[in-house]
Amino acid sequence: MRDVVIIGCGMTKFARPLPGSLMDIASEASLKAIGDAGASDRDFDAVYLASMASGEFAHQTAAATALVDELGLIPAPAHRVENGPASGGSAIREAFLGIASGMYDLVLVTGAEKMSTVPGEVVTDVISTMAHYEAEYIHGVTLPGLAAMLTRLYMVRYGLTEDQLAAVAVKSHENGSKNPYAQLSHKKATIAGVKDSVMVADPLRLYHVCPVSDGAASLVLCSAEKVHEFSGKPIKIAGLGQATDTHAVQEREDPTVLKSVQIASRQAFEMAGLKPKDIDVVELHDAFAILEIVESEDAGFFPKGEGGKAAEEGKTALDGEIPINPSGGLKARGHALGATGVAQVVELVWQLRGEAGERQVKGAKNAFALNFGGFGDNSVVTILRRTS
Amino acid sequence: MRDVVIIGCGMTKFARPLPGSLMDIASEASLKAIGDAGASDRDFDAVYLASMASGEFAHQTAAATALVDELGLIPAPAHRVENGPASGGSAIREAFLGIASGMYDLVLVTGAEKMSTVPGEVVTDVISTMAHYEAEYIHGVTLPGLAAMLTRLYMVRYGLTEDQLAAVAVKSHENGSKNPYAQLSHKKATIAGVKDSVMVADPLRLYHVCPVSDGAASLVLCSAEKVHEFSGKPIKIAGLGQATDTHAVQEREDPTVLKSVQIASRQAFEMAGLKPKDIDVVELHDAFAILEIVESEDAGFFPKGEGGKAAEEGKTALDGEIPINPSGGLKARGHALGATGVAQVVELVWQLRGEAGERQVKGAKNAFALNFGGFGDNSVVTILRRTS
Repeated sequence: MRDVVIIGCGMTKFARPLPGSLMDIASEASLKAIGDAGASDRDFDAVYLASMASGEFAHQTAAATALVDELGLIPAPAHRVENGPASGGSAIREAFLGIASGMYDLVLVTGAEKMSTVPGEVVTDVISTMAHYEAEYIHGVTLPGLAAMLTRLYMVRYGLTEDQLAAVAVKSHENGSKNPYAQLSHKKATIAGVKDSVMVADPLRLYHVCPVSDGAASLVLCSAEKVHEFSGKPIKIAGLGQATDTHAVQEREDPTVLKSVQIASRQAFEMAGLKPKDIDVVELHDAFAILEIVESEDAGFFPKGEGGKAAEEGKTALDGEIPINPSGGLKARGHALGATGVAQVVELVWQLRGEAGERQVKGAKNAFALNFGGFGDNSVVTILRRTS
Repeated sequence: MRDVVIIGCGMTKFARPLPGSLMDIASEASLKAIGDAGASDRDFDAVYLASMASGEFAHQTAAATALVDELGLIPAPAHRVENGPASGGSAIREAFLGIASGMYDLVLVTGAEKMSTVPGEVVTDVISTMAHYEAEYIHGVTLPGLAAMLTRLYMVRYGLTEDQLAAVAVKSHENGSKNPYAQLSHKKATIAGVKDSVMVADPLRLYHVCPVSDGAASLVLCSAEKVHEFSGKPIKIAGLGQATDTHAVQEREDPTVLKSVQIASRQAFEMAGLKPKDIDVVELHDAFAILEIVESEDAGFFPKGEGGKAAEEGKTALDGEIPINPSGGLKARGHALGATGVAQVVELVWQLRGEAGERQVKGAKNAFALNFGGFGDNSVVTILRRTS
């Protein structure tokens, strides 16, 4: 397989609403990434659009074609990759495979979602359609409901406290306040404030749950052998992993263990030749505070049952031993579904380049992103490495 | 790039309605293909689901995960590829790249669509969302409307007659009557009957237009170096092409020329080291009769303006010089959107193996499939070769 590097990245601010159409925001992020790569005058070999629900939210199908036209990149082949909220991670993987194969040299990956176009109850319903249709969806289970049940079970089994759970949100908002692209960059949080916020799905409160977001993020990928043709600073895609688990949560032997996260992480670490202790900065898929805790364990950064304590002790803070979600995560940067997995990697590219401003993790060399589809039934891991 | 072969295929009958859920029909086709490959006891490296509108029609997102679970293929990585009605062709391309790269050895590609779950006007609307949102969709343009305008312009410019246009449909129904998987296998057509059928979008009548279909089709792809481990008869993927064109039809210099078909075909022929005259059997994307004519020219099988005459003269019949749509095509086999591109290749695999029964094209060695997204703005070509 040929080596693949990221030479450009860009994103819109995440917001609700973000002005403009799905194509407007996808184009904004794409043009920033293309400009950042120094590839504005180049033909692209392929374009991937990650979007969970372009049809349901923006009433647009075959939207990858629309993006290619909007960007003036005709006749580049293009299609959309959909894997629920892990669509972004999946699209990066597909672009990687296209370049690794030798078929492509220069590929654009853009994740975009407009969720503000439909009423909140439609958003909740569309997101719920990734749950198991017969075992979960038709019984009215929503994603916050699944996360609440996981939180309660985890609390009973591992002694997670409300303060520990709140600490995750407080840290996310602290980091998000340093990220100009974050949807909730204007909001900080306190332990007391989180514990006093409105209940969404007991025991999860408003500050434990990510917002509904519009946003887009974009990456330019290139074969390592052509990287000298571009001005963008290269960051290597060193490892990839992706794994599925039972669709219905109730079928898992232990619902507090995210097997797909374990397997995808192990694959990515093996491919990169790295161990969890080698990672300097991490973006996890904290759609709910409990997920950041469980993922941080199943990815290998903390022993099982200790993720909450680690957050409370500041181990995951910007200056902690393993900084998690410097961007503010899904909680504070926002969670624009198909855009999220790409935005995670954009943040990590900035971190590895030393361009993350106030939220910079000093000297970061290896970075880890986990993008999560469904309720843990499809996890995608991307490991990045600064080679210079 | 490593060589990639198809070692198994299967499909459901196309019908309206086909009983069962989206997952039921996707599983049926998948299990047939896996069995055909002799891979029932094997782990798969990846699963691709092609579906244009699983969310809009079947109220299911992240459906690739559901399929993996349904088939017992956990933890295989999986995602959905969406490229309008060309989703199937795009998914085959992605699977090819994954194997060509060296990342995968054994991959399942399944295309599936349940269109009968929603009322006809919803089907028409969802399909129309692949038109250009501002330039076409919001003005009420539908796909039959675009095809009707193309037909009229082509008639004026090239002298296409109503009899020639009808000849395409008559041939499709004749072939479809020999295909047990075809939705309209029970219906033959005559020139007079086609010309007398109800008008859909002047000058296109009912018999010029494909039906609304449920259906699924599936392929098992394998690296050439592992093919000896399986019992399925291998057919090589010899060439691939994919290209985009302007999203809005009105922006094309000449709307009777499908540039994306020209470019995608040229790429695929170059990769395969073949010319149009080397092809023995063809599946084209005849969502409307006019498309089979124009595509047969722009892919290189006939000079511009002569596709209608060729159909009338029987050159595209099963025993003609270049048999087109032995399956009955979208017109008679049916057009289950995301399943269609996969079903085209399933038909061609059967043809190259000599397993196509009454509709067998004798001694076929090289085969060509064109899957078409939007209204010609995204074309995907797959060329197959029998090597034994």
